Amino acid sequence: KAGIIGAAGFTGAELLRLLVQHPGFEVQVITSDTLKGTPLSEANRTFDKVSDLIFTDHEDDAILGCEAVFLAVPHTAAQKHAPRLLEAGVSVFDLSADYRLKNKAAYELWYGCEHCSPDLLGRAAYGLPEIAFDEIMRVRGERLSGRPALVGCAGCYPTASILAAYPAVAQGYVKPPLIIDAISGVTGAGKAATMKTHFCFANENLEAYGVGKHRHLPEIEQALGLGGQVVFTPHLAPLNRGLLATVYLHAADAGQAMDLEMIHRRYADFYEARPFVSVLPLGDLPKTSSVVGSNHVHIGLAQNEATGTLVAVAAIDNLCKGAAGQAVQCANLVFGFDETCGLENPALYV
Amino acid sequence: KAGIIGAAGFTGAELLRLLVQHPGFEVQVITSDTLKGTPLSEANRTFDKVSDLIFTDHEDDAILGCEAVFLAVPHTAAQKHAPRLLEAGVSVFDLSADYRLKNKAAYELWYGCEHCSPDLLGRAAYGLPEIAFDEIMRVRGERLSGRPALVGCAGCYPTASILAAYPAVAQGYVKPPLIIDAISGVTGAGKAATMKTHFCFANENLEAYGVGKHRHLPEIEQALGLGGQVVFTPHLAPLNRGLLATVYLHAADAGQAMDLEMIHRRYADFYEARPFVSVLPLGDLPKTSSVVGSNHVHIGLAQNEATGTLVAVAAIDNLCKGAAGQAVQCANLVFGFDETCGLENPALYV
Amino acid sequence: KAGIIGAAGFTGAELLRLLVQHPGFEVQVITSDTLKGTPLSEANRTFDKVSDLIFTDHEDDAILGCEAVFLAVPHTAAQKHAPRLLEAGVSVFDLSADYRLKNKAAYELWYGCEHCSPDLLGRAAYGLPEIAFDEIMRVRGERLSGRPALVGCAGCYPTASILAAYPAVAQGYVKPPLIIDAISGVTGAGKAATMKTHFCFANENLEAYGVGKHRHLPEIEQALGLGGQVVFTPHLAPLNRGLLATVYLHAADAGQAMDLEMIHRRYADFYEARPFVSVLPLGDLPKTSSVVGSNHVHIGLAQNEATGTLVAVAAIDNLCKGAAGQAVQCANLVFGFDETCGLENPALYV
Amino acid sequence: KAGIIGAAGFTGAELLRLLVQHPGFEVQVITSDTLKGTPLSEANRTFDKVSDLIFTDHEDDAILGCEAVFLAVPHTAAQKHAPRLLEAGVSVFDLSADYRLKNKAAYELWYGCEHCSPDLLGRAAYGLPEIAFDEIMRVRGERLSGRPALVGCAGCYPTASILAAYPAVAQGYVKPPLIIDAISGVTGAGKAATMKTHFCFANENLEAYGVGKHRHLPEIEQALGLGGQVVFTPHLAPLNRGLLATVYLHAADAGQAMDLEMIHRRYADFYEARPFVSVLPLGDLPKTSSVVGSNHVHIGLAQNEATGTLVAVAAIDNLCKGAAGQAVQCANLVFGFDETCGLENPALYV
Repeated sequence: KAGIIGAAGFTGAELLRLLVQHPGFEVQVITSDTLKGTPLSEANRTFDKVSDLIFTDHEDDAILGCEAVFLAVPHTAAQKHAPRLLEAGVSVFDLSADYRLKNKAAYELWYGCEHCSPDLLGRAAYGLPEIAFDEIMRVRGERLSGRPALVGCAGCYPTASILAAYPAVAQGYVKPPLIIDAISGVTGAGKAATMKTHFCFANENLEAYGVGKHRHLPEIEQALGLGGQVVFTPHLAPLNRGLLATVYLHAADAGQAMDLEMIHRRYADFYEARPFVSVLPLGDLPKTSSVVGSNHVHIGLAQNEATGTLVAVAAIDNLCKGAAGQAVQCANLVFGFDETCGLENPALYV
Repeated sequence: KAGIIGAAGFTGAELLRLLVQHPGFEVQVITSDTLKGTPLSEANRTFDKVSDLIFTDHEDDAILGCEAVFLAVPHTAAQKHAPRLLEAGVSVFDLSADYRLKNKAAYELWYGCEHCSPDLLGRAAYGLPEIAFDEIMRVRGERLSGRPALVGCAGCYPTASILAAYPAVAQGYVKPPLIIDAISGVTGAGKAATMKTHFCFANENLEAYGVGKHRHLPEIEQALGLGGQVVFTPHLAPLNRGLLATVYLHAADAGQAMDLEMIHRRYADFYEARPFVSVLPLGDLPKTSSVVGSNHVHIGLAQNEATGTLVAVAAIDNLCKGAAGQAVQCANLVFGFDETCGLENPALYV
Repeated sequence: KAGIIGAAGFTGAELLRLLVQHPGFEVQVITSDTLKGTPLSEANRTFDKVSDLIFTDHEDDAILGCEAVFLAVPHTAAQKHAPRLLEAGVSVFDLSADYRLKNKAAYELWYGCEHCSPDLLGRAAYGLPEIAFDEIMRVRGERLSGRPALVGCAGCYPTASILAAYPAVAQGYVKPPLIIDAISGVTGAGKAATMKTHFCFANENLEAYGVGKHRHLPEIEQALGLGGQVVFTPHLAPLNRGLLATVYLHAADAGQAMDLEMIHRRYADFYEARPFVSVLPLGDLPKTSSVVGSNHVHIGLAQNEATGTLVAVAAIDNLCKGAAGQAVQCANLVFGFDETCGLENPALYV
Repeated sequence: KAGIIGAAGFTGAELLRLLVQHPGFEVQVITSDTLKGTPLSEANRTFDKVSDLIFTDHEDDAILGCEAVFLAVPHTAAQKHAPRLLEAGVSVFDLSADYRLKNKAAYELWYGCEHCSPDLLGRAAYGLPEIAFDEIMRVRGERLSGRPALVGCAGCYPTASILAAYPAVAQGYVKPPLIIDAISGVTGAGKAATMKTHFCFANENLEAYGVGKHRHLPEIEQALGLGGQVVFTPHLAPLNRGLLATVYLHAADAGQAMDLEMIHRRYADFYEARPFVSVLPLGDLPKTSSVVGSNHVHIGLAQNEATGTLVAVAAIDNLCKGAAGQAVQCANLVFGFDETCGLENPALYV
């Protein structure tokens, strides 16, 4: 029995797409602050002849009868729902930023608001199974002993950036600062209609935004153990889904260039057992179109010869592996399903 | 046990996407005229960590060991494979135009080449279950009594056009000629790299093409029983997938405008039991984005008040319901699976 | 000396693009209801190092010192400005719908509001020089004799639809009803940020809208002399600029199909002297990309053989020939400049 | 009198668009290796009712009667034309890479072929007026004294990258290696129809390519005086035109972060008198859509607080300022026209 709070937005719709086909979770409650009483199939025609669900409001207590609830609401709103749900024995998978950072001060600095359930920050597992598997197993264990799980699912930019950098950084091969240059499709900007998301302004346009100030920066630094040493620049490009992160890795030992083939083997080994991560053969670089609609991550490596700098590139679908798919993957682990359950579909080729 | 001949093209890739997740069919053989020996996951990265299949060539006899084979090759090529497969006891689902028309002369006129297995034209069922269910049940019956089935799956434009027009035309409400104006995404133009499919020429462009000459015209006329009375104009627009057909229906009785609400009820009744077709409420018109990636069809109706003309609009995914999904739907029916088996996934909301 | 009321919208920006390079008009006043005091180059970066203009508000009397004023405001707003300007001796080129229809009742029926300066409807020239040249010459003459000109510039869909149909309809070759199926880019939906103009909903989507109810219908009927006999269906496709109208022409004499070559010659003759209209050779159909950014119109003709129906297709840039370029073309004629003055630039090839 | 060799490609068409409106150059000869005898307006409909030019072939001696010839052919082909033209007294503006590098060995290393007129490398001016004004003035002077000019116009990626980095690098503020991350529209991949330029593969996709190996790297290093110290990663995004370069600038003095406001003033001062370069106010970052179709460059600066790294972003139209517009700008300077002559048009707002 599952519920989704905030099911009318982009990540909410993506959760529904994945969960209506999931053999282990049955969505019973979906909420929206504006669509109470509206059938899902009317608000979102993709569910016509697929689902009979009807939106209820956020306050509906039916949600407390679920075993797993996904929070697809903005940060600060998630903080209000999580404590109430946990108290009622419901495991919570939060897709907002509210439970990603371990440090209350960092949260308050970057998000510009007080955190109203800081005691839960330590309890939450970081929802990026490829690098925080142990944390997720910990909350799974807690759930089995009666304490509902809380997972703060990783953000879209952090997912691609961290997975591209982690095997090299964790081995100590890399000298900071780490430069991450990323490009996202427009779904990353959310469902609100603004000048930024207006078709005519986003189409046929490229731009950088939030340079040095994007809120995903502290999350990346936390996961890589590189506090204050990451430069992160997000860009917007005219496509719906898809996120590409290009990470520049300078050798820790200035006198010695990194060995591309060795590093490539490390990456391949590190991710070999992970069902959603492919390290592409040398000479091949990832395309976001190969992963859109799926929970897969494609990583490619190359080297700038003269400087020896390694360039690691990762491609994900920002709404799936970067949000809803990741939450389902975490929920699979917490509830003991196969990690890929309900996430088996490959991307559309075109 | 299933096979795909021509698995490297757009419809072949779409068949693979659907069949690797299908609980009833297991793809064992995939062929390509150029990729023999290449792993699928190398030629098409969407299958990385999803499938271990390896391409073989069209002549490989392994294909004869399958129970169902999907032909995703161009017209004329399909004619060469079908007889050999049927003879070996393999049921054939042809996605090309070779077995859609019942009339040899019409085929040869429109396709400009001789048909080399005309005797099979009568045997083939027309693969559009919503209007040719009986034909498909007939070949299913034949298959059960030992004669392998042959289905000539409907084309993309015909699928949308016929489903938009059929309930009104079949009831005799409509006075010909019938005008059909349709728009397709660029996947409809195939995988060949040409000036027409070059990104920079297709992007930010709209054009009509093949006016009065498109080969889907006789197929539409055959299904609607309107030989020589259909005007069909396809257009190309800058998107990957999606096909919208707008059909203009003049009242058969010139003195009397059609009753929109009555016609709407007829459409709703006609399609009510069909799992993939939604007739939208009056006031609502279909969007291709609501069906892309799915096997669904959305149909909307409206009326031009002064002239009384009805306008029926249908939206499909040209590669799914317009090609591969339809073939799987037909195969489900022929092999006794649930009609929606392996086709349950809704479209991406965005 | 020229002014633009409503210079912050899409058509206002397009007027500015054309007029800052125009050798005959010098833009001195630009107004906006929200940007008073803001430099143009700040509100619209395309004018950085191009123009030093600063927005003033709609009420600024400086506008009354202009000789020509372009109204790029919504319908109903234009009615408020035009009388005041004309009274002050300023010629007015209205890009809204307020002075297109000759008939007050038709305006009030279709636009759902009273017309507050109905006496001007008869005075206004219809701003589509290719078919209303005489009207425009009339107001030019009036201007020369001291009465400022009023031009109600043609809408985007009407421009393409009328130019595609006119030579055949005017010759009496065509039997109504006339079916017009048109596709527009998203700039046609305006600058307001809505779910319809949200990138993620407009991108990778096709839809019809306003079937039988679009306000451009009476304008098309008026220009073609086909009151109550036109069926017009607009569609939206994922591109910024570009509008394609496909018009279906049935022979007036039911017993006799139209002669494609003869009609093609008539079209070619009719438009030969018009500097912006090209009738493409038979076998060639227009692409919107060939006219985007320019004031050109490309028209192609083809025939559906079995039914004899002629299909005429016209491509324009909806913001240029469909709005701002047309207004400048009209202003050129009214002020005695060469018709192509300031409109010489061809489209971008890609 | 001007000519264009290779006028059928993307940059050739862009040169034509600019030159048919140029008051100083009259295009008299256009060549193509495949279109000899074809009217321009037939090969490229954007010139219908605009130009009567007819293609001739590359070998036509009429080209030798021009005063200025633009080479819009691939590298290696340009080397064959330039010596013959110069000998005939024709000034040459080469849009290929053949005369950009000063060093024969570097050319042969990166382009993998011998240079057959290496003596001209020193004679050629580097065609990026904002940083190589003196070189261009030198060849202008030579032309005035009877020696035809040769200009090797800067590439698209180098134009954006160099202009973004130059003021800081030239002042010695920056510690190498310099990381440049750039994104280009698909016109940058040229007119050839390939899987890379196929609409369905380029659309809804992001990818990096040519990491560490792109041929624009040595050109960037040469202009910035940073041989072997630049890391350059180009990306492809789904739009026609537009190129964005994001450059990371670490402080030369490790102990001291760069002062953003001071650097911003330096950039503003450096480019103040340059008619096509805008340094945006702090807080604003460039959009490619603001410069598409124009010869303008927009540059924005921001800073990553924790590391102090400066991020400089530049936006250009890759076919205009990155190719044809730049060549016209250089030709204006060499022939004594105003630098902006024929290049005054602003971008389309949408």
